[in-house]
Amino acid sequence: MRLSEVAGKIGGRLEGDGSVDIRGVAGISEAGEGEVSFIANPHYTDEAAMTKASAVIVSENWNSACSAALIRTKNPDEAFTKAAGLFYTPPARPAKGIHPSALVAADAEIGENVSIGMLCIIESGAEIGAGTVILPQCYIGRKAVLGEDCWLYPQVSLREGVRIGKRAIVHNGTVIGSDGFGYTVDAQGGRTKIPQLGIVEIGDDVEIGANVTIDRARFGRTLIGNGVKIDNLVQIAHNVVIGDHAVIIAQSAIAGSTHIGRKVIIAGQAGIAGHLHVGDGAVIGAKAAVTKDVEPGVYVIGVPALPAAKFKRAQAGLMLLPKFKERVAELEARIRKLEENR
Amino acid sequence: MRLSEVAGKIGGRLEGDGSVDIRGVAGISEAGEGEVSFIANPHYTDEAAMTKASAVIVSENWNSACSAALIRTKNPDEAFTKAAGLFYTPPARPAKGIHPSALVAADAEIGENVSIGMLCIIESGAEIGAGTVILPQCYIGRKAVLGEDCWLYPQVSLREGVRIGKRAIVHNGTVIGSDGFGYTVDAQGGRTKIPQLGIVEIGDDVEIGANVTIDRARFGRTLIGNGVKIDNLVQIAHNVVIGDHAVIIAQSAIAGSTHIGRKVIIAGQAGIAGHLHVGDGAVIGAKAAVTKDVEPGVYVIGVPALPAAKFKRAQAGLMLLPKFKERVAELEARIRKLEENR
Amino acid sequence: MRLSEVAGKIGGRLEGDGSVDIRGVAGISEAGEGEVSFIANPHYTDEAAMTKASAVIVSENWNSACSAALIRTKNPDEAFTKAAGLFYTPPARPAKGIHPSALVAADAEIGENVSIGMLCIIESGAEIGAGTVILPQCYIGRKAVLGEDCWLYPQVSLREGVRIGKRAIVHNGTVIGSDGFGYTVDAQGGRTKIPQLGIVEIGDDVEIGANVTIDRARFGRTLIGNGVKIDNLVQIAHNVVIGDHAVIIAQSAIAGSTHIGRKVIIAGQAGIAGHLHVGDGAVIGAKAAVTKDVEPGVYVIGVPALPAAKFKRAQAGLMLLPKFKERVAELEARIRKLEENR
Repeated sequence: MRLSEVAGKIGGRLEGDGSVDIRGVAGISEAGEGEVSFIANPHYTDEAAMTKASAVIVSENWNSACSAALIRTKNPDEAFTKAAGLFYTPPARPAKGIHPSALVAADAEIGENVSIGMLCIIESGAEIGAGTVILPQCYIGRKAVLGEDCWLYPQVSLREGVRIGKRAIVHNGTVIGSDGFGYTVDAQGGRTKIPQLGIVEIGDDVEIGANVTIDRARFGRTLIGNGVKIDNLVQIAHNVVIGDHAVIIAQSAIAGSTHIGRKVIIAGQAGIAGHLHVGDGAVIGAKAAVTKDVEPGVYVIGVPALPAAKFKRAQAGLMLLPKFKERVAELEARIRKLEENR
Repeated sequence: MRLSEVAGKIGGRLEGDGSVDIRGVAGISEAGEGEVSFIANPHYTDEAAMTKASAVIVSENWNSACSAALIRTKNPDEAFTKAAGLFYTPPARPAKGIHPSALVAADAEIGENVSIGMLCIIESGAEIGAGTVILPQCYIGRKAVLGEDCWLYPQVSLREGVRIGKRAIVHNGTVIGSDGFGYTVDAQGGRTKIPQLGIVEIGDDVEIGANVTIDRARFGRTLIGNGVKIDNLVQIAHNVVIGDHAVIIAQSAIAGSTHIGRKVIIAGQAGIAGHLHVGDGAVIGAKAAVTKDVEPGVYVIGVPALPAAKFKRAQAGLMLLPKFKERVAELEARIRKLEENR
Repeated sequence: MRLSEVAGKIGGRLEGDGSVDIRGVAGISEAGEGEVSFIANPHYTDEAAMTKASAVIVSENWNSACSAALIRTKNPDEAFTKAAGLFYTPPARPAKGIHPSALVAADAEIGENVSIGMLCIIESGAEIGAGTVILPQCYIGRKAVLGEDCWLYPQVSLREGVRIGKRAIVHNGTVIGSDGFGYTVDAQGGRTKIPQLGIVEIGDDVEIGANVTIDRARFGRTLIGNGVKIDNLVQIAHNVVIGDHAVIIAQSAIAGSTHIGRKVIIAGQAGIAGHLHVGDGAVIGAKAAVTKDVEPGVYVIGVPALPAAKFKRAQAGLMLLPKFKERVAELEARIRKLEENR
């Protein structure tokens, strides 16, 4: 495809030779001849000056050096995604139907145009929505329900009764519906398991990363809203409720019965204690330890988590302590002198 | 079941109409007509005033508003668990016997009344105790030993030689007996793997969550005591020893050769360095980084972990720093004046 | 084997009765008669005085009490590994060939002397190098490439197009090549998935622990160098580059597009933000949160991470705050007196 054609299809303004033949996209420092790259993060400005790419997608007001043709656009990140789509052949959809090696219960309800891969297990009473793809070695428990057009990567486990909406994507090794962690303790410290009677219910358009764990409710439902995106190795405990369009980055954990508002963003390795409310649109910083409710729209960081400005002030104070100590020592010396001179 | 009957069976004292028909249990804000809920955590007092539940289990001395009938009891949490049990039908035990699609070595010893699910693999010399249930797609390595009445959820992996006691519950995707992480380093920084010759040995009545990893010993045994409960995504390194009735919450990690005492509680996302001793009954706070031995019964928090009172004092000091800074600036001004007036 | 023979084979100098019969190795506090142990960590000096081992491998200049014969050597850790090797029978290599229950695509290229275990799936166009062992229930995606003499434990997932070099060891439940976590956001907060077009490429002599997740690149490659060792439950995001001989301990996470230098050591539960450079030979402390580039060879700790000396100074200041507060209060009292006396 000619560069001019790429620029046109992504809605950008070309500065440079539009006749160059483009065959793919790549990162700014890896791209070579015939490839389009992009700069969305000022971090990479230096790399632009010596990129080997044939063209670079930049913002409207870009004015740094670049060794390649430019495609100016309002949102370089978005435009690059479009460009990538021009050259991307999505993984072939597996053949429709049930692979002969899969074990599907006679009373499972399998929708139209479903693909069930090699060595999958679909237990009794499960329902698989039309157009859904289940890749090899997945386990779908009794009466679990998967909506239309979902895509499960290999080795996903859905425990009994789990309900997932439409267009979900679930990556390898993820477990949905494992028992919540709950015990009563006797006087000797022995623990008796509290039966985990509930389910997990997941809305539409949710994506869940690899090796994630989402526990079923003690009773009622662990609830994941529409459009929620969950990264790898995240832990979601029993009875957690997650609002629509929330985002949860890798290795974060949400303890039991906590409610996460709509559009909340939880950065990597954060932890949120149980029985809390995190308001709509709040942002939880990476590695933060949330121990109290968070108001809507507030950005918290730290261990324990504080509003970011407060945390940064405390942190700055900490860094100034050595200097501060000198000031107090000096004060002590001066006061001693004054006292001697009295 | 009538409410009066529910109250009687859980040993509570009813205040309200005992003739109401009860058909289940639910959380205080989700419960509706015909459901019993409970308040164990003062957090939820407000919700009690407007719950739609037909009855709420509360403590003996409860005196807040509640829109439902009350069942007074000494331990509402425990009583609620009993109530839930009245309405809970546990998942059907799978059929006894070996599913024809499972691959079981001819010399594996399979006890009476064992269930081995679809596509399970039981390697040579493994021993499965009477009454144990192994759900689909599990892998039981050579000479691994599972005691009586264990329950393995799908896709659990036990490596060769692992030994597990009676009544263990292991959730999906958990790996027990993977190699410990150990290398010798040469002068060029290259690493040579140290063979991990040991096993993992697990006591009776242990429950292990989903996607947990427990490494085999470098030599000898990684040892998990009786009654230990381990949550999802926990990492236990080689040669760790965990005392009876310890509890380890999600995403915590214990580094190599550390000994955890009896009844220790390790909260979520905590980390404990290698070669340490954590005394009986100690409590490790969420996200704490334990870098030294912990005395029995002590509660530590923070990074690095300190006894809680000490940590909180330091933390409080940190928050006071800005005010403190003002005080020192004021002192400097006053002293300047005194010096000028001398 | 006689003790004298053990000492000779590991290149140590024996002090004690060489005629004792040795049948294995064990840890210092677990070892009994007929076993050799070692002391590499001064932590265990006390245990040496009362060990039941028949011999203990110690350093050249060891001069503490020991109840057993000694084998002196320059590097006790390395010598012990050699000793363990004398008594260790490595797990039997599984039979060569493809197990009849495995499902191997007709056009997959399978090298000589390969073992493919029960219920494995090898998709179309995959290449398996000579001598490689794939244990049961693994999934090898389309066009994935595994080099010679690799060893995959059960239930490993390689997504399509992943490339792994020679002699890799990958432990149970690990997922390589899952989609990176990337979306564009519309004005309403809805997210559109950015196709993850790239692959994961892994060098030679890499070991990867259990339940690890390594995401494929957004475009181009997520790149893991030669000799890299990765512990359990680690998360590596899309487009990360990891230099040769780096070491990443359990539950650490590296965010997207970050470059990790050669021989970097990342301790447990550390997190490194995206788009950063960590220089060759840097050391990231346990639980550190790296938010800026790290210079080569520097050791950083803390949240946010600082060079260790700076962090420790700040931490020490924090601990002194209560005392410090007293000093300021005393200054205030003395100055008040001076002012009154003026």
